[in-house]
Amino acid sequence: MEKTAVGMKITHQITALMVCLAIASISACSVTAETPDPLPSWTDGAVKQDIEQFVARVTSAGGADFVSPEKRIAVFDNDGTLWSERPWVEGEFMKYQIKQAAIRNPSKRDTQPFKAALENDQEYFKNAGWPVIVGTARTITADMTREEYDAEVVDFFTSAKHPRFDVPYQQTIYQPALELIGFLKANGFSVYICSGGGIDFMRMITAELYGIESDKVIGSSLKKELHKVAGKWVLVTTDEVTVFNNKDIKAVSIDLHIGKRPLLVMGNVGGKGDLGMLGYSQSRDGLSLQLLVNHDDELREFAYTEEDNESLNEAGANGWTVISMKKDWSLIYPSN
Amino acid sequence: MEKTAVGMKITHQITALMVCLAIASISACSVTAETPDPLPSWTDGAVKQDIEQFVARVTSAGGADFVSPEKRIAVFDNDGTLWSERPWVEGEFMKYQIKQAAIRNPSKRDTQPFKAALENDQEYFKNAGWPVIVGTARTITADMTREEYDAEVVDFFTSAKHPRFDVPYQQTIYQPALELIGFLKANGFSVYICSGGGIDFMRMITAELYGIESDKVIGSSLKKELHKVAGKWVLVTTDEVTVFNNKDIKAVSIDLHIGKRPLLVMGNVGGKGDLGMLGYSQSRDGLSLQLLVNHDDELREFAYTEEDNESLNEAGANGWTVISMKKDWSLIYPSN
Repeated sequence: MEKTAVGMKITHQITALMVCLAIASISACSVTAETPDPLPSWTDGAVKQDIEQFVARVTSAGGADFVSPEKRIAVFDNDGTLWSERPWVEGEFMKYQIKQAAIRNPSKRDTQPFKAALENDQEYFKNAGWPVIVGTARTITADMTREEYDAEVVDFFTSAKHPRFDVPYQQTIYQPALELIGFLKANGFSVYICSGGGIDFMRMITAELYGIESDKVIGSSLKKELHKVAGKWVLVTTDEVTVFNNKDIKAVSIDLHIGKRPLLVMGNVGGKGDLGMLGYSQSRDGLSLQLLVNHDDELREFAYTEEDNESLNEAGANGWTVISMKKDWSLIYPSN
Repeated sequence: MEKTAVGMKITHQITALMVCLAIASISACSVTAETPDPLPSWTDGAVKQDIEQFVARVTSAGGADFVSPEKRIAVFDNDGTLWSERPWVEGEFMKYQIKQAAIRNPSKRDTQPFKAALENDQEYFKNAGWPVIVGTARTITADMTREEYDAEVVDFFTSAKHPRFDVPYQQTIYQPALELIGFLKANGFSVYICSGGGIDFMRMITAELYGIESDKVIGSSLKKELHKVAGKWVLVTTDEVTVFNNKDIKAVSIDLHIGKRPLLVMGNVGGKGDLGMLGYSQSRDGLSLQLLVNHDDELREFAYTEEDNESLNEAGANGWTVISMKKDWSLIYPSN
């Protein structure tokens, strides 16, 4: 994205105050009060300016960078971009699935990883690694109907809590990201999620958490088959992975599900998973915006990097906007 | 769908006239004129009543069959449901692709199927069959960038004409289907296409023809890869088929792209391709509507059946609403 020079930014609050003082009219003040800062949890600075200027330019009818509403496509990663990914929430759900499977089937209780799930033996899981957890959970999912799987996701979210913050995972979503989604929607954008997470897992919560309906959620998926069970047609999940929605495949999936290049993509530093869709977005003809969340706030959230710094290096080389959680976000989680 | 008895239906036109006569007020008449029949090309009868009653029931707040807007999912097949499938338009495009490839590459001109495409030798194509045409077109597509493919689709539609009606294919869309799409959208439905056609082919025209944007189009697809070409990230199509979106797979694809069971599905008699999604829709909990277009109008469109009558038999067995093009549609193509 080409950056343009702008004068010093006056905060929306000060602007509103000045209008009130100048006009000294209660009705004028109340009109001003109807257009509050749409991004109150973003601190004033270069990052917030990048976003505001970009949206202004692509929505200015007659302007050189105007983009018609049907092409205003915004795509967000989920884990580490819309909510905290420490721990990986879907991974915690998989452990929950393994535990529930052990409860349903006592013969499994003395074998791993079921024993560890029952005993909350995090040390075992750490040593066993994600392939064991993901693989076991996949086998369990393939034994369930879609409806049973969905119900288990709902069950998980009614009881599970973040291990550090001791709140439901529904509360470890990023308030600034919510505000950005709202700001983009108010400016005619269609907002999608494109995540490495399981598409069925995410869809059980994205409408509630982010106001993003299931048809705007793109993720990893298992193969399904249509079967008649007890007189009704149902989709049965198999344990065959059809899409592992990560890295380059995110761009491929965006094309499959949306059919247009994104105008704006927001991802995060961590697993390099968003580089593919960030680059794909930037290669569109005309203006675009790439946002990359950097987890540098150990106190309020987490601090982590990539061993070789690839995402930040790419951001630097390509002019992407890096969001410092510490500096650019005045609030991390919703305060309610 | 459970059918309810209703009294004799008075047409919207007569209702409007009566209101005008009774009130004898110009302003009242103009108010009435603002709510014209949303389905003017559907003749009054059981089929039109099925549709109107169904929409009224699922949108009546507080009613037993009320469905919240985010679950009002309507899915339409394309070929034979939204536009004529005689000839198969995408098949004609494939012949056009083969012809263009021969023009670009003179060394191919004396080999088949390129020779036939150059000479418009329909007899050759009829004998060779679709696998030869589809397979050759796939190889040509895999040699092109996405942008080149899209441009060729646009080129095709600027010049191609329906062989019988001698009008652009854009004019052989069904006016009653357009009205139904508009009626559903006005009642809070999200409207999708789920077709055996190529997803990239359809997306070049669905917004213009039906007002259905690319993210609401589901179809067959080839595998794509993200490559950097001349400094830009582009998706390159390969000749590997990832989804052949037909029969049962249509239900699987609806789940992948939409994530909800359709409330309404409309397909057509012909290749049995819509049975999977019609059944999947009907197996949802609660009310749903299945519509099946029967091509029985040789004079105004085409008349054809299935050799074993399976689609009509399924419609009869399951209580689906069969649309007779001859009886239920007063107009086939837009009249402009």
